[in-house]
Order: sequence, then C-alpha cells, then structure tokens
Amino acid sequence: MTKTYTSEEAEALIHSHDPEHPANLICDLCQGFYKLGWVTGTGGGISIRDKDLVYLAPSGVQKERIKPEHIFVLPIAQSSVPKPGSKRDFIRIPKKEGLKESQCTPLFWNAFTMRNAGACIHTHSQHAVLLTLLLPRETPSFRISHQEMIKGVRIGGTGKALHYYDTLQVPIIENTAVEEDLTEGMAEAMAKYPDAPAILVRRHGVYVWGNTWEQAKTQAECLDYLFEIACKMLQNKIPLEGFE
Amino acid sequence: MTKTYTSEEAEALIHSHDPEHPANLICDLCQGFYKLGWVTGTGGGISIRDKDLVYLAPSGVQKERIKPEHIFVLPIAQSSVPKPGSKRDFIRIPKKEGLKESQCTPLFWNAFTMRNAGACIHTHSQHAVLLTLLLPRETPSFRISHQEMIKGVRIGGTGKALHYYDTLQVPIIENTAVEEDLTEGMAEAMAKYPDAPAILVRRHGVYVWGNTWEQAKTQAECLDYLFEIACKMLQNKIPLEGFE
Amino acid sequence: MTKTYTSEEAEALIHSHDPEHPANLICDLCQGFYKLGWVTGTGGGISIRDKDLVYLAPSGVQKERIKPEHIFVLPIAQSSVPKPGSKRDFIRIPKKEGLKESQCTPLFWNAFTMRNAGACIHTHSQHAVLLTLLLPRETPSFRISHQEMIKGVRIGGTGKALHYYDTLQVPIIENTAVEEDLTEGMAEAMAKYPDAPAILVRRHGVYVWGNTWEQAKTQAECLDYLFEIACKMLQNKIPLEGFE
Amino acid sequence: MTKTYTSEEAEALIHSHDPEHPANLICDLCQGFYKLGWVTGTGGGISIRDKDLVYLAPSGVQKERIKPEHIFVLPIAQSSVPKPGSKRDFIRIPKKEGLKESQCTPLFWNAFTMRNAGACIHTHSQHAVLLTLLLPRETPSFRISHQEMIKGVRIGGTGKALHYYDTLQVPIIENTAVEEDLTEGMAEAMAKYPDAPAILVRRHGVYVWGNTWEQAKTQAECLDYLFEIACKMLQNKIPLEGFE
Repeated sequence: MTKTYTSEEAEALIHSHDPEHPANLICDLCQGFYKLGWVTGTGGGISIRDKDLVYLAPSGVQKERIKPEHIFVLPIAQSSVPKPGSKRDFIRIPKKEGLKESQCTPLFWNAFTMRNAGACIHTHSQHAVLLTLLLPRETPSFRISHQEMIKGVRIGGTGKALHYYDTLQVPIIENTAVEEDLTEGMAEAMAKYPDAPAILVRRHGVYVWGNTWEQAKTQAECLDYLFEIACKMLQNKIPLEGFE
Repeated sequence: MTKTYTSEEAEALIHSHDPEHPANLICDLCQGFYKLGWVTGTGGGISIRDKDLVYLAPSGVQKERIKPEHIFVLPIAQSSVPKPGSKRDFIRIPKKEGLKESQCTPLFWNAFTMRNAGACIHTHSQHAVLLTLLLPRETPSFRISHQEMIKGVRIGGTGKALHYYDTLQVPIIENTAVEEDLTEGMAEAMAKYPDAPAILVRRHGVYVWGNTWEQAKTQAECLDYLFEIACKMLQNKIPLEGFE
Repeated sequence: MTKTYTSEEAEALIHSHDPEHPANLICDLCQGFYKLGWVTGTGGGISIRDKDLVYLAPSGVQKERIKPEHIFVLPIAQSSVPKPGSKRDFIRIPKKEGLKESQCTPLFWNAFTMRNAGACIHTHSQHAVLLTLLLPRETPSFRISHQEMIKGVRIGGTGKALHYYDTLQVPIIENTAVEEDLTEGMAEAMAKYPDAPAILVRRHGVYVWGNTWEQAKTQAECLDYLFEIACKMLQNKIPLEGFE
Repeated sequence: MTKTYTSEEAEALIHSHDPEHPANLICDLCQGFYKLGWVTGTGGGISIRDKDLVYLAPSGVQKERIKPEHIFVLPIAQSSVPKPGSKRDFIRIPKKEGLKESQCTPLFWNAFTMRNAGACIHTHSQHAVLLTLLLPRETPSFRISHQEMIKGVRIGGTGKALHYYDTLQVPIIENTAVEEDLTEGMAEAMAKYPDAPAILVRRHGVYVWGNTWEQAKTQAECLDYLFEIACKMLQNKIPLEGFE
C-alpha cells in the first residue's frame, strides 16, 4: 500500500533546507566518511530510512561529491528484496543520465527488514579489511572483549547497549564477485548471529546498521575503532578476549 | 552558597557571541578532538569550569555535532561528587528530550576538586589505549623521559612545567563496567601520584586536566604525542626511560 | 590543425565560474590530493584533457595553492611528445614570472596518446613508494587479487572494469635522475602491459589515468588503497594473490 | 642602522589584507602545520624574514590559534644572537599580557645569519623524532639516497636542488634541557655540514630553512616525507642508501 507520488511530489522529497533531511544527510555524512577513508574510490555509503521511504546514493560515483539531486528514493514495502537494475517501484530516480542506485541496495534492505533498522552504513575501511586478513583463515567471526568502545555498540545493532564485560561478536562472510550476491550470505549470517551489530565481508569491508542514522554512524565509528585496535593487538600478539 | 538562577538567567548562560565562552568552546574543541580521533563514536569530551560554574556536554551523543543549547551547567559547589542521573543542583538542563549529562561528570569533578583544575579532557585515543595494552600487564604507571614534549606538561597538571630530564609518570587504573565507578579509582590514583598530570584507564582512554582549557588541551596533545611515540618505541624495543 | 588562439582567447580558456572547468578542477583536486599526502612538497599533480586542449599545473610549486591563472594550456596535437622547456605550441603560458609547465608533461602525454585518456594523475604517495621497496628487488610488477577495491579499476585504465577474481597487475619501472627521462620507460611498460591501469615508479610514485577526471581520480584512490593494503599484507606475510 | 619605528608604525607592520604578508602567513601556515602534526601542544612554528625584519610567533601558545596581533617583530640586525627574554631591540611586542617570543628565536637566527635564509620552520614531527630513535645511537647524521623526494631539497637549504642520485645528509644533534641552549650545537652542525638543508634534534624534532617561506615549507614537507619513509625502511630492514 505504498502511496503513489506525482513526479512533482517525488522531486520534492529530496529538496529540504533541513540539514537533517535524509537527502542532505547522506551527502554530508559521505563527506565525513571520505575523510575517514571509509568510502574512497566510490566504495561504500549510507542508506537512510524515513518511515516508509528509503533514501539511497547512486552506484559508482564519488561519494564525497554526491548532491541531493543524485539521491534515489524507494518505498520500503518492496514485494521482494530489490536487486540493482531490477524492475521495481522507484519513487524517485535522479534525472542525471546513467545513474544507477547503489549496488548495496539489497544489502541495506537486509538491515531494514531483518532488524527494522533506520539506517545502514557500508564502509571499505582498511581496518575492517585488514582485520579479516589478520584473523586465521577459518575464523567465522571477530570476537573482542574488555574494550570501553564495546559499550557504544547495541545488541543486534538495534537493541540494548553492550556492556564492558560482554564479548562483541561480528560474523565474517566471504566476498562474492558481484555485490548483490552477498545478500543471501549476509542474511544467513544475520539469522545465525541475531546479536551481531554488523557483518564483516572478508577482503571487502563491513555493513553496520542502527535504529537511526545517529546510532548507525556512532556504531560504525565504535566498530571501526575496535577493528583498528584489534589489528594492532593481533600484530603485537595481544589476545583479543579472555582477558584476566 | 550557590547563586539561584531564574530559568531565563540559566538559559542565558550558554548563549554568547564570544567564541571563547565555555558553551561555544566545548562545541568547537569537540570538533577538533573528533578530527584527532579522540572522541569518535560519542566517547570522550571536555568539561570547562568558569568560576563557580561547570559546563558539560551530554552523554552518548556525537561529540563533533554538539551545539551550545545541548550544554549542561552545574554549580561547582555540589555537596558531594555528582553522579550521573543522581538528584543534584543543576543550573541548566538542555530542553531536548532524553539528554543526560556526560557519564564522565564525577571524573571531571575529581580534577576540579582535587587539583583545582579549570578544565578536564577525556579521550579514547588509540595511542592511550594501545599504550596500556603494550606495557606489561602489571605496570602501575606509564613512565617516560628524555622527550622534548615532556616540557609541555605540568607537575600535577596544574603546577610548574616539567623539564626535559624529568621523568613523566602517568598512573594506569583498571577499567570498570560503569564509567562513574572509575571515580574512586581515579581519585585514589590522583592522591597516590600527586605529580601526575593525567590518569590512564586501561582499555579505555585517558583523563587530562589543566588550570585553563588552553592548558588542558595543550597538555592532552603533549601527552597523546608521548603515548604515540611510546607505542612506537615499545614496538621497536627502544627503552622509554633511563636513557644514557 | 590546432586552432590559433588570440591572447585574449587563450586567457579566457582558464577563466570560468563552472567548478568542473579543468582550470578550476585542477586547483580543487590538488587541494584534496595534498590532504591525502599525494602531492606534498610540490610533487605530483593532475593533467586534464578537454577535447583538443590539455590543462597542466606548473612545475615545482605548492600544488595545494595553485590558482587557475597558473594553469598552462597546450594543444593535444603536438608534433612530438612535449618535453618540459622545449620549444612547442603553447596556447597559454601563465604570466607569473618563472613558471614552467609540470616536469610530468611528457608522461601525462603517454596516457593521452597511448590510452586516449581524459586525465592523468601523478602521486608521490608513500603507499606506492613503500610498496616498490617492500616487493623483492627484481619484481617487474605489482600483482594482487581477491580485493573488492580491484573492481574500481578498469582494464588498461580506460576499458571495462576489472572483476573481483581478476588479478590486477601494475608494472614497476626504475626511477631516473630527470623526470622526463621516465617517458620512454613508461611508454615501453604501457606497451608491454596493455591491461595495466597505471605505472609504478620505484622510489618515486605512480602514474594513473582514466577516460575522465572522475575515473582517473577514483582509480587513483582504488589503486592507492590497494597499495596500502598490500604493504600491510606484505609486512604481515599475507600473500597478495593465489588466495584459496 | 635599524630604522626607528613609532609605535603606530610598529603596530602597522602586522596589519595587512595581503594573505601573503608574513604576519598573516605565519597564522595560516601554523594551522596547516597543526593538521600535519608538526606543531601540536604549542611545539614548533615558523619565522619569516622580510628584508630587515623578522616575524615570530609567541612561545608556549596554541600554534593553530595564533592571530596576527600576537606576532613579534624584530630587526634582523641584532648586535648578537637574540636570546628569549634577553634585552634586545624589539620593534613590536604584542600587547596581550604575558606573551614571550618563541623559545626558538636564536635557532631561527642561525638560519638567517649563517644561510641568509628567508624563513625557518621548526617541527616536532613524530617522523623526525622516531627517526632519531631508530637510527643507531651514535649515528651523527641521517643519510638517504635514491628517493625522488630528495630532488625537492636544496644544498645547504638555500643553494641548488639536490639530484636523485645525491645522498641527502642531515646532521643529528643532541637535545638540551633549554631550547636556546641548542643554539651553539645547531650552529656548529651547520658549520660542519655546510650542505645540510636542516638539523635534526634527537628526541625533539627538526629545523628546516629556505630562501623563501615557500621553499622552507616545501623542503620541510620533502624532508618530513623522507623521515617517514626512512622510518618505514628501517623497520622493514631496507637500506637507506648504497642502493644498487
């Protein structure tokens, strides 16, 4: 029962003077993520859900230079997981020629439908990728405990905050040739690890979500911090958990 | 003997065109600390004391996006150490729903009451945390000598400047599940090490203070520099002190 | 058959309010490259081709402080590879005394003439230089596979995008005393490795090109990311290819 | 025969709308140096000479927050090397109470008088300090060859540019308890190594100079780059010179 939008109404969805409007936020946040090294070379991005609408950046563009007029809008109530390029109920497609919605669309949808998330962030952070390389090859998940920054992460990404003595666990799935082919593997890992606040993709990056864009962003920062300190600990042979 | 403020007077406390007013400074400095990686993911922050008033950021928010209207104001003359959420004499509580004062409040108070500090900074810097992990497990304090940057640090944080040949000593306390539970351990360490300009918290971060916000900030920078160079020295098996 | 420009027409070539005009873009992009550590100390830069005109920065100046009036304009249709300081058909030479066109001019020309590139970037990134030092001395090229960021690079720099399972190969040539003496070595490597999207220069940096400035920049970012992760992998004894 | 300035004339020396006026440049450059990590915690800075006048920042202040009104002006023609706090011919002393001229004043003077430099930069860069710690304890100088960035450095700091095959040599002197006590050691090293473009101070930082502020800055960047790559080479057991 998605509302039907006229083209004027659809266009109006991405024009706002409010800096916290999703179309403005995506542009602003992507600039910040670029400075953090998370979305260099067109990789990564953020999708924000506002009630029954989902706002998405285009695929394959410089994320730090996106403008609101480049933003795609989709209804959250798709009949199935939306695949990039497939026929679906777009509410707004940018007029600029050749733009396609982010390849991450079906992966963002996992967070929206399986965790009822309000936002989902994908980064190619070197800390995430190096961590998946430093951990032994068979390791199914990253586990760490006894780090203050664990307290900034929520159970399942959208539940209660973890405690200092809790063990944070983030599953690691294998990368695939095409980004949308990660969809199923990510969904399986989310089902198998209901408390996981994120999914690491080996040799690729991480997906993090939260109830709101603020929680998705601060959790992405806490997790990236933990990936970074974990890489340093592994390189210095300091155990990641089981401390004391 | 705290002055009683009308709600208009309390509200006026955080509105100023002076960029060096505490409510403006906290916002400005937190943006800088974010770029340094000190307050990522809502962690860390700064509290500034102006005569008998203390200005504080909220808990659990993005520190680089704080605005003056989010700032809490408390009287310095609390009857006891203020614990977050406890009943106390707030002068100003931000109107935005759900904001609570920083969890670090009682720790900042240690610096104000035990050292008569004018400002206290808390960071989650990776250099601080990695240092507490690289030092042998039993090490009660970080010690370093023969570094130019030691001269930027003051005895006890608020006394005379250290000299190049002095040994800087910063106690390391164990982290606790709840931030306010660090209060006593930090106070004990400050009593035991009266010359220490800061307290490191293992697997968590550091508390640094100074007579003014400028001194607190420049000392936090000097200490963070020393934590960083010390990590590199330890990783390269270069002794931190006892040089020559 | 290059068009003949009056001095007014030549001067007009670099004045535009369009932020995406080549003369404005070079200045803007060089500021970004400075922040990335790619063009520190006057090194590196970018040349953009717009139809039959090539825009170039001066040699030996602070790249992050270039202004449009410092930009050189040359016709792409030089009778031979233009060498810095040689007599050639300049369309516009900046009026500021002592400015010479970038020493990289003939190297940029390789990308324009051999790959029909629309832009070429040269960086002194530490990741590129360290990589050429960490690889065994005889290694003729850098090879890496199974990294998501490989998908951001195109075959030969201007062809189709590489896939995740493809092996990226970037030849490494030896540095020379004078930058223009690299011209022949770079051309030979480009001829020998037609699929290579870039040329590494040992103890010096990298040349990267693309169909457009956007593709040149995003490929330079993807490659720099891969150089960085490869350095970390080599330092941690993780193989760069042949995974699984 | 220094000109005598009225207080109005002296005050006018630091007020200019020209962004390249020394008083404006010092503020601008120090902000950039702060972002590079060169002048954190009040350390480091830059002095610029304009004909017979020398412009200096104050001592012990946040270098990224200096304003033109804080700048000291001295005549270059001091009867002896000026020592901080000593009686001397100031042309302009900032009115703000408690400001003293940079502790580096006599060290900057070495560059002005012994090399006829137009500007001198002092940094506490971690790359410089770590390098002095990684090199064997007795090493009197840092030597490196076969690096492209060597070409950005001039013989003696103010002469002709070095070539790729030249060996760059930067003497390392021992640190002293008081900064001005470095004056003599620095002068001796400059006399002993007339071709050196800079002086490293063990466990402290580096002094770099040039004919102009542009040359001092770009040489400081090239040298810092070389210090950084040298640290990485030493940590990976790659020889710094004698290559091939």
